[in-house]
Amino acid sequence: MLKVSVLGTGNVASHFIKAFDESVEIDIVQIFNHRESSLKNFNKFETTSNLKDLKAADVYLICIKDDAVETLVHELKLDGIVAHTSGSLPLLDSPHRDAVFYPLQTFSKDKNLSFKDLPLCIEAEHHADINVLQTLATHIQAKAYNVDTKQRQELHLAAVFVCNFVNHLYHIGHDLCKKKNLPFDILRPLIKETADKINFKEPKQAQTGPALRDDQSTINRHIHQLDDPIYKELYRYLTTSIQKTYD
Amino acid sequence: MLKVSVLGTGNVASHFIKAFDESVEIDIVQIFNHRESSLKNFNKFETTSNLKDLKAADVYLICIKDDAVETLVHELKLDGIVAHTSGSLPLLDSPHRDAVFYPLQTFSKDKNLSFKDLPLCIEAEHHADINVLQTLATHIQAKAYNVDTKQRQELHLAAVFVCNFVNHLYHIGHDLCKKKNLPFDILRPLIKETADKINFKEPKQAQTGPALRDDQSTINRHIHQLDDPIYKELYRYLTTSIQKTYD
Repeated sequence: MLKVSVLGTGNVASHFIKAFDESVEIDIVQIFNHRESSLKNFNKFETTSNLKDLKAADVYLICIKDDAVETLVHELKLDGIVAHTSGSLPLLDSPHRDAVFYPLQTFSKDKNLSFKDLPLCIEAEHHADINVLQTLATHIQAKAYNVDTKQRQELHLAAVFVCNFVNHLYHIGHDLCKKKNLPFDILRPLIKETADKINFKEPKQAQTGPALRDDQSTINRHIHQLDDPIYKELYRYLTTSIQKTYD
Repeated sequence: MLKVSVLGTGNVASHFIKAFDESVEIDIVQIFNHRESSLKNFNKFETTSNLKDLKAADVYLICIKDDAVETLVHELKLDGIVAHTSGSLPLLDSPHRDAVFYPLQTFSKDKNLSFKDLPLCIEAEHHADINVLQTLATHIQAKAYNVDTKQRQELHLAAVFVCNFVNHLYHIGHDLCKKKNLPFDILRPLIKETADKINFKEPKQAQTGPALRDDQSTINRHIHQLDDPIYKELYRYLTTSIQKTYD
C-alpha cells in the first residue's frame, strides 16, 4: 500500500482524493487544510488543520494555489516525498524530497472525470522517487510522463491555448447565441467534430472557415455583426493569425 | 424517392453526395461541375459539366464557393428547388424557388462524418418547399432547424468562434509542442475533456486557468515564453477577454 496525504481541498485535491480512494493500492493517511471548515466534506478520512499533526506518509501531495506552495512546503517538518501539482512552479528547492505530480487536465467541481490514461507529468529531485510517483500514477490508471520543469512549463502554456482559451471561445459562441435567442445546442455537433477531427489530421490540415479561404466579404460582415469591441478585436487577431499560418 | 442533383464537387458536396447515396429514399440525378476533371471521382453517378444538360430534379443543391453562387444560380434554366448551402449568403432572389440548406458542421476531406443529428438550417422562399427540405434532411438522419437568414448569419459567426478559431488554438498548441519536441498526444485528453465539459456546465462556469485566477506571475511568464509576436498578442487579448467576462 502506498501511503498518501493530500494537502488542499479544492478542485484538483478533490479529484485526486476520489481517485486515490477508489484504488485498493493507495491508503489516504490524512487530508489537510488550514481552515477546519474546508475539511467538513472529507470526514470519511482523517483530517487535520495543523501541519504539525501530519503523520508519516510516502507522498504528501500539495494541491493548493501556486503562490502559497513555497511557504507551506517550508513549514513542513517531515520525511517522505513532497510533490506539488502545479504546471507552472519549478521543482522546489526545499529541505524535503521535492517532486512534481502535475495532472495535465482541467478539473471542475461537480464534473466527474476518469483518471484512465490521464497524463501526469512527473519530476523528482531524487531519482528513486520517480518510481514511487510512477507507481502512484499507475494505481489510479493515469499515464506518467517524465517531464522536466522547462518542458512542463511549455506544456502548461500549450494547455492554456487548447483548454482555457478554447473554453473562452465556447463561451463567446454561447454568449452570441444567447443574445440572439438562438439555441447553443445547435453548435454542439460542430464543437464535438472540431475536437474529434484533430485525432485524424493535424490541426493545421483541419482548418476551415472564412479566414483560411480569405473570404474578405464574410470576414467584414462578421466584424460588423459583433457588438462587443473585445470580440471584434479577437475576431481580427485570430483571423490574422490564421492567415499568417497559411501565407 | 426524392430526386436531388448536386452542383459542386468539393468537401461539402462530397459529404452530401455520400449521405444521399446511402439513403434509399434519395435518388441522385446528376452531379455538376464546370470542370470535367473534377467529376472523375464521381463516375458512379451521372455527371455533367454543362448547366444546360441538367435534368428534372426536386432539389438542386448548390455546394460551391459563396462568391460564385449568385452567378451560377442566375444561369440555371429549370424548375425545382434551388438551395444553396452557405452560412453567410442570404436567401437569394433569383427566378427560381430559392432556398437554403446549410449544414452547421465542419467538413474535411478524408474524414468520415456521421450525418446523424447533424444540424441543417433550412429556409425557403415558398413555404411548401420547407417540407421538402425537411424530408431531405430526415432521409439523411440530419436534424432540420427553421432558421431565417439573419439567424443563420449569427450562427455562422458563432460557429467561426467555436470551430475555426478553436481549431487554430489547437494548431498553436500543436506548434508550441513541435517547436519544443514535446508530444502533442499528451494534450489530447485535455482537449477532449474541455469539449466534453460544456455538455455538463455552461462554458462560463467551466472556465479555468491563470486568466480566471488572475495569476499575473504565470500570465507574465507565459507571454515571455512565447516567441511568436502574434501568439503573444493573442495570449494577451484572450486573457483580457476572459478577465472582462469575470469582472
